This record gives sequence, C-alpha cells and structure tokens, in this order.
Amino acid sequence: MYLNEGERIDQLYADDIQIIQSTNVFSFSLDAVMLANFPAIPKRGKIVDLCAGNGAVGLFVSRKTKAPIYQVELQEKLADMAKRSIQLNHLDEQMTVYTMDLKDSLTKIKGDSVDLLLCNPPYFKTSETGIKNPNPHLAIARHEIHTNLDEVIHTSSKLLKTNGRIAMVHRPDRFLDIIESMRRHRIAPKRIQFVYPKAGKEANILLIEGIKDGKLDGFKVSPPLITYDQEGNYNPETRKMLYGE
Amino acid sequence: MYLNEGERIDQLYADDIQIIQSTNVFSFSLDAVMLANFPAIPKRGKIVDLCAGNGAVGLFVSRKTKAPIYQVELQEKLADMAKRSIQLNHLDEQMTVYTMDLKDSLTKIKGDSVDLLLCNPPYFKTSETGIKNPNPHLAIARHEIHTNLDEVIHTSSKLLKTNGRIAMVHRPDRFLDIIESMRRHRIAPKRIQFVYPKAGKEANILLIEGIKDGKLDGFKVSPPLITYDQEGNYNPETRKMLYGE
Repeated sequence: MYLNEGERIDQLYADDIQIIQSTNVFSFSLDAVMLANFPAIPKRGKIVDLCAGNGAVGLFVSRKTKAPIYQVELQEKLADMAKRSIQLNHLDEQMTVYTMDLKDSLTKIKGDSVDLLLCNPPYFKTSETGIKNPNPHLAIARHEIHTNLDEVIHTSSKLLKTNGRIAMVHRPDRFLDIIESMRRHRIAPKRIQFVYPKAGKEANILLIEGIKDGKLDGFKVSPPLITYDQEGNYNPETRKMLYGE
Repeated sequence: MYLNEGERIDQLYADDIQIIQSTNVFSFSLDAVMLANFPAIPKRGKIVDLCAGNGAVGLFVSRKTKAPIYQVELQEKLADMAKRSIQLNHLDEQMTVYTMDLKDSLTKIKGDSVDLLLCNPPYFKTSETGIKNPNPHLAIARHEIHTNLDEVIHTSSKLLKTNGRIAMVHRPDRFLDIIESMRRHRIAPKRIQFVYPKAGKEANILLIEGIKDGKLDGFKVSPPLITYDQEGNYNPETRKMLYGE
C-alpha cells in the first residue's frame, strides 16, 4: 500500500479495520467511532457516509453489514486516503468513494433510495470564531466553509427513502439548529444520545437519529455515554468501542 | 395544623421543609425535588410556581431566596394543602397561593413581571391513553385535562419579563413539543438536563430552562443525573437533594 508523506496506518481493534491517517491532513476521532456504534446497521439495502473524511465511519460500519456503502467526500486528499484504506481492508466490492461536493451527490446516488445515512459533518459555524484551523484540510473538515448544517440535512433528506434513517454526530450547542433543520426537511428526530466527557461534566458530543417522513411521537433519549472515568481513563463502554474488549 | 382525612405531614430534610401530603389527593415526587434544584434561584425579584400542586416546588425553593413566591393551582384541595403547608413552615409573608386556572393567572400576577417561573405540569396527553387515573385529583394533576403544554408555556411567556427564566420538568418523549412551543412563544431554550433512572437506561425525566426573548445560541446540556445505583439505592446526588447529606 502506497503511503504519502506524513501518513500512517492505524488500527481500530474493535472492528479489525486498518485505516490510513495523517496528522497533517485528517485522522478520525472518537466521534466517528461513536457514530459508527450509534444506529442499528441494516443487513442489506444502501448505506451512505456523507462528509466521509478519510472514510472511518463507513469502514467501521462495513463489518456489520453486506449492504453497499457509498462515501461522499469533497477533499481529494481525504477521499484518496479513504480509497486506499478500502483496498487495504479488501472492501472494494462493498465500498465506493465519490470525490465530490455533497450538493452533487444526487448525480451519483439516486434520490429516495438510501436506507441509512451516516454523517459526521463540520461542526463549527464559520461566523463562530475568527480562529479557524490554519491547516486548510482540517479547516474544511471542521468548519462550515464549503457546506453547512442545513445543506447537509437537506441533501440527506433527498437521498433517504421514506422511513430511511439518518444518524449524525454533532456538538450539543447546535442541537436546536439540528432539530429545526430536520423538521424543515421532512426528518422526524427519533432518538438522541448525549456523550459526557466525565461524570459531573456537560455533554460535549450529541448523537441523533431521525427518520424521513417519520411520526413525531415516541422521541427517546438513550442511556448516557460517559467517555472517561474520574482518573481520566476510558470507561469500559468507550474501551469496548475502541478495542472490542 | 388541621389535617384532613388521609393527610400526613412529610419532611424534605434537605431543605428542612414540612409538607402536607395525601396519597389519595396528591403527594410530591422526585421530579419536584429535581426541579427545585435545577435553576439558579434569584435572591430577589418575583418567582411563580405554576401547576403548583400541594406547593412542593415553591416550598423547597423558598429556603434559597427572599423573593416573593406566587403559586398557581387549579384544584382547591391541593391549593388548600399548599396554603396549610405555608403556614406550617411560617412562610406566609413570602408565599401566596392562588386557587385558579393558570389561564387566569394574569388577573392576579402582572404580565412581563416574573423573574423565574417554575413549572411541573401534567405530563400526559389525554389522547395518549384511555387509561387515566381513576382518582380525579391525580388524573387532573397528571393528564392534560384542564390545560396542555402549549397553554402552560404560552401563559408562562406572558408572565415572564424579558430575560426572565422558565424552568420546567417533563418527560423526554415530550421534548420536541416543548422546544417547538417555547420557540412559538418567544422563549429560547438554553439548558437541558436529563435524568436517567440508572446507568445504561434511557432518560425518564427532562429538566429544561429557557429565557424569554433570549438568544438562540449557547445551548447547553448539563451533566447527567442518574437517580439510582446498580443496587437500586439512591445515588449520592439524589440523596443530597432529598436528605441534604
């Protein structure tokens, strides 16, 4: 496997997946692991990973399904890493990477056809802070420079079939925006899970699942995930997601 | 102190408050204790306890402030218990009970005047289930028979001054309704806290704080409250709210 300068191969032990990463370009975070563990994964049908980055979420999910997985990533360097990781794990038959703006995803993926859409979008409003990451790859992955929350959800809704599900990871401070955008684009929020870094701390990660054209009742709040114990070590639940033990 | 048949005097040790209760008419639950512990209590200004029941929330909060507390309760039997509990705790100077429909509360409490409004409303839609409590007092306290969520929030908004806060306890499955109703009535949801009965269980109680005419950014998810430990005993945090230890 060809590695570019600065790239390395990391392993997610829990899913036995090798993944090409780079500190300078992109490496997956715990958020991606949590997203991959959040929704029920359909055994068949069609899965899309939007804002796929280096492909982590789709790669992790591939172990649990035979369904084809389509990954959409704007940045060529990141999409290229995802493509090589797919080869590395012999997943060429199951997984496809499209290097394109998510706005164009309907040119490659049929509308109203997706069973599960996973998305780990840029978290930060560009207006939110003048301090963007000086690294352009990381800035685009983390800040709403080339897309924004509403566009992500609107595109997701167009791709999803009726009763198809979207699962997204984001930050709790964008919660009201997410709910509003989902409602605007025919997605019923159905389940939410909050991740707290430690007991006694505010939530720092939000996982949310919605159903296209779903009913608005029966909203559920899943058990809390608490990342670290009081000594700063991963809790058993976090360890299980990372190391499978 | 005169007690009606079936009534007893209970004590909330944490706040050193005695409260008249009745299994047949109304007795406060952990929800009320959690609500009283949820928002910052202003030292002065005006506090309203809407859907006050036997007065528990207002009574608990009285220990933390010199502000006058107005309680609004529709049911005469419950309001009467609240009035006698106020006497029992020598809080007549600080607390007032209005026996009335909350729709009429603006006849007694000036609009745009309230600093903090606390509310533990009926949780259940009347349509939700044919099985209402056969006890009419409990049915009215728990089911949306004489009021509903939107009316509660609309009335709250009218009572609150600009930047006044509402703190409400409810069930997580009504979460989307609460957010939508708050937005409709000029209240910005600002902070939420979920209560989980045990680690690994879905949330069963929701605490939410909103600000009238507040900004929509800066939404926060407070640390999780987990009521019981794995053996079914109260966790230290719950014990502290109940027993002050």
